[in-house]
Amino acid sequence: MAKKLRPQLSKKDYDARVPVLREQLVQLQVALKNAPFKVLLIVAGLEGTGRGDLINSLASWLDPRGVEAFSYPEATDEERARPFMWRFWRQLPDMGNIGLYAGSWYTETLRAEARSRKALAHLEHELARIRHFERLLVDNDTLVIKIWIHMDKAAHRARIKTLSADPRTAWRVTEEDKRHQRIYDRLDRTSALIRERTNQPGATWHVVEGADERARNLAVAELLLEGFASHRERLATLAKRRRPAQPPAPLRSLRADGRRLLRALPLDHKLSPKTYEAKRDKWLGRLSLAVRAAHAANRSIVFVFEGWDAAGKGGAIRRLTSAIDVRNCRVIPVGKPTDEEKNFHYLWRFWRQIPRDGLVAVFDRSWYGRVLVERLEGFCRPDEWKRAYRELNDFEQELTDHGSIVVKFWMHISREEQLRRFKSREETAYKQHKINDEDWRNRAKWDGYEIAVGDMIALTGTPAAPWHLIPADNKRHARLQILKTACKNIEKALRQKSAKE
Amino acid sequence: MAKKLRPQLSKKDYDARVPVLREQLVQLQVALKNAPFKVLLIVAGLEGTGRGDLINSLASWLDPRGVEAFSYPEATDEERARPFMWRFWRQLPDMGNIGLYAGSWYTETLRAEARSRKALAHLEHELARIRHFERLLVDNDTLVIKIWIHMDKAAHRARIKTLSADPRTAWRVTEEDKRHQRIYDRLDRTSALIRERTNQPGATWHVVEGADERARNLAVAELLLEGFASHRERLATLAKRRRPAQPPAPLRSLRADGRRLLRALPLDHKLSPKTYEAKRDKWLGRLSLAVRAAHAANRSIVFVFEGWDAAGKGGAIRRLTSAIDVRNCRVIPVGKPTDEEKNFHYLWRFWRQIPRDGLVAVFDRSWYGRVLVERLEGFCRPDEWKRAYRELNDFEQELTDHGSIVVKFWMHISREEQLRRFKSREETAYKQHKINDEDWRNRAKWDGYEIAVGDMIALTGTPAAPWHLIPADNKRHARLQILKTACKNIEKALRQKSAKE
Repeated sequence: MAKKLRPQLSKKDYDARVPVLREQLVQLQVALKNAPFKVLLIVAGLEGTGRGDLINSLASWLDPRGVEAFSYPEATDEERARPFMWRFWRQLPDMGNIGLYAGSWYTETLRAEARSRKALAHLEHELARIRHFERLLVDNDTLVIKIWIHMDKAAHRARIKTLSADPRTAWRVTEEDKRHQRIYDRLDRTSALIRERTNQPGATWHVVEGADERARNLAVAELLLEGFASHRERLATLAKRRRPAQPPAPLRSLRADGRRLLRALPLDHKLSPKTYEAKRDKWLGRLSLAVRAAHAANRSIVFVFEGWDAAGKGGAIRRLTSAIDVRNCRVIPVGKPTDEEKNFHYLWRFWRQIPRDGLVAVFDRSWYGRVLVERLEGFCRPDEWKRAYRELNDFEQELTDHGSIVVKFWMHISREEQLRRFKSREETAYKQHKINDEDWRNRAKWDGYEIAVGDMIALTGTPAAPWHLIPADNKRHARLQILKTACKNIEKALRQKSAKE
Repeated sequence: MAKKLRPQLSKKDYDARVPVLREQLVQLQVALKNAPFKVLLIVAGLEGTGRGDLINSLASWLDPRGVEAFSYPEATDEERARPFMWRFWRQLPDMGNIGLYAGSWYTETLRAEARSRKALAHLEHELARIRHFERLLVDNDTLVIKIWIHMDKAAHRARIKTLSADPRTAWRVTEEDKRHQRIYDRLDRTSALIRERTNQPGATWHVVEGADERARNLAVAELLLEGFASHRERLATLAKRRRPAQPPAPLRSLRADGRRLLRALPLDHKLSPKTYEAKRDKWLGRLSLAVRAAHAANRSIVFVFEGWDAAGKGGAIRRLTSAIDVRNCRVIPVGKPTDEEKNFHYLWRFWRQIPRDGLVAVFDRSWYGRVLVERLEGFCRPDEWKRAYRELNDFEQELTDHGSIVVKFWMHISREEQLRRFKSREETAYKQHKINDEDWRNRAKWDGYEIAVGDMIALTGTPAAPWHLIPADNKRHARLQILKTACKNIEKALRQKSAKE
């Protein structure tokens, strides 16, 4: 491949084309504000290929009020204390904005690869994670444009040399740039692999030649304009084809085995208060030790509580947290999303709440709302809740890969027991705040919920994060079983090596 | 002071009282959810006085779904890279919740004092900052309950000894606990000073004896119940007495000199395109160097752009940011607060956006909305915007104390020039998105705004963060003056030592 290193686009031609592009870009931004969706323009490539220059040129053409630029220097300690993808979730552009990514998940991947030649298996794992993340963005109507700045070895060397020679630019050349030049061949092969593995519908790669800076700038601006236009068309077509969100319709099971499991659950447990108290105290003590051990081992714990209304989530959480130092623990009641949260993918609000290493988060309802209430009430479209099962599994995989311990409970009561509890709540003064019309409305949809819960259990119970079905007609029995299950799962996870090791 | 170290409250009496208190506390939580305001229960005291125990006991009595516990171990790198109070702003309880503070701003203060006997002046400065913060919370209807756990020296020593002797509790004794025992006398004197200086209406100290744990727990629970009851009464009284938010009424100046300054500003500047371009490029180059120097010196820069509608903020920001690496810079357009932001003090949304050391934030409109649009439109009560001047000054003081460089612009145009620009926007296709009915409505309130702007300039121009009035009838002149001013102010700040040193 004989590539010319000299610019092929004259300054004159460039200067003539820029004003036109700028006008088009600003029009794009106005349209985007009214659309609105998000645009992620990801610029990847080896260090020293001028990604920063490119981003700065693009930014100077755009209205800065609709642009956010992201780069990823070394992770901070807060970032290292959470799953890998957390630092990318916490920095996403607002609705109607363009995110310019001078660094990205690809930077991290290449950086790690440059430092130590990784086992291929590990790299593949990371690329799968990136694929999941980008697919999730694309599915959420985000426009993802991926540019790989390519320079052949000689051009890369020449650029570094030119920058180094001029005292005004020498400071921009980093050790990393030079290292990438030294191991150029290996990284170039890895780059090809990365692109191949992360090429998928809606997130394909555009390889742009980086040696001619002016041509590069124009090419990328044009890719942005074209990408925007075709994305709008695609969304318009989709809007016609998509089945809209559908409120109350008879539900059909995706997988019957979950509901069968649920229905087979025995609910007629007996447990005397005295036996309960003795066992409870024993397990509380053991749980307290287990949580402390997890804290010492820098492992975070994520408890998920799902269950029928009045199944006793509040009481169970209260007993559970009594064994945990409140300074290391947060209970997160999950209600309707805020308007800020609505501007992001539905998982964003949960990523925000992911505990740091060593800490405990108790989710009182959770991300499973997507396949329960949102499915039932038609708050999202069928295609959205249907793909959520995979997204939820990927999400929890991120957590457990990082070393978090995920313990999920479904608290199960019978229809009759729920009725008894609702009535008791209505009749007891200090319990009245716990019941409202919505609870009764949800109860009327029991059959539909049962199907949704069954599907959830069948489709999101994974080896790393299985569902624990807790029979809860007997409150004492349920609380005890939750303490036991929590305790045993933490102990088991601590015995196993964390996935990071 | 002969104090008994033995518990004075029998276990039997304690066990009898706890259930009653618990019932009352849960009722308090239900009432709080419906109120709603926030409750901060701050537990301070030397290390090793059992603050954690107390917080855990309280937490076990409360419904964990309405409780958030905060403690402050060593600051993370992200926290150290921002002003001192940032880490406290980022962790505040939600509306209707109780925040239990096992650690707090007092922990930091005592910790620093224990490590190195600080100059009194420095301590006083820190206490003033704490006073400002708590006053701001109280003014915002937050219930602040401050408990200082007191133990005399012998009791403190005995507690550490008891804990150390038992292998089950020995791990809880830290080096810090022991150090506080060693320098008990000095810290006890500092504690008294801290309490004295931070005692103020709505945030007074309750000194609770810590040696008898049971009595301590009950005392604090009762303080919480009493505090809650009297706070509700106070709010009810206030609600009657407060003048409600008042929409459009003729404004009266608080300080006439600000408006005089504004009116005296000459607006008839001339600048040829050619001279402009030459000078612009010179200043852009110099600015670029200054910003890079600030980055290298780990100083953050906060630009504030305020001005009349159509004064040219967008264009000026665009020129300014073209000199800055987009990866180190964020433009933050300030519009209506989100519903999440509305649940906090109005300054919270800006604290969220404070850049890390070395980075640049450009606020396109800002916290000054409080004394401009919110005052004019009656979005807040008169007592609220009146005290905002002080709060805004305190806020910026936090930034500059930390070493941030704050540069504030008021872009000023004449009424006639605004009219010309509005009309031109309406007539030019690609500018139409820049003008709407609200702009015309605001224009009709010019006189009122002029008064509000005048007051703002007179009351919030401080030596560390002065206002720069930019005559902007001539766009070129305005842009150039902004570049110059930005540049000179950054250079000046870099010559001066950062306040931290």
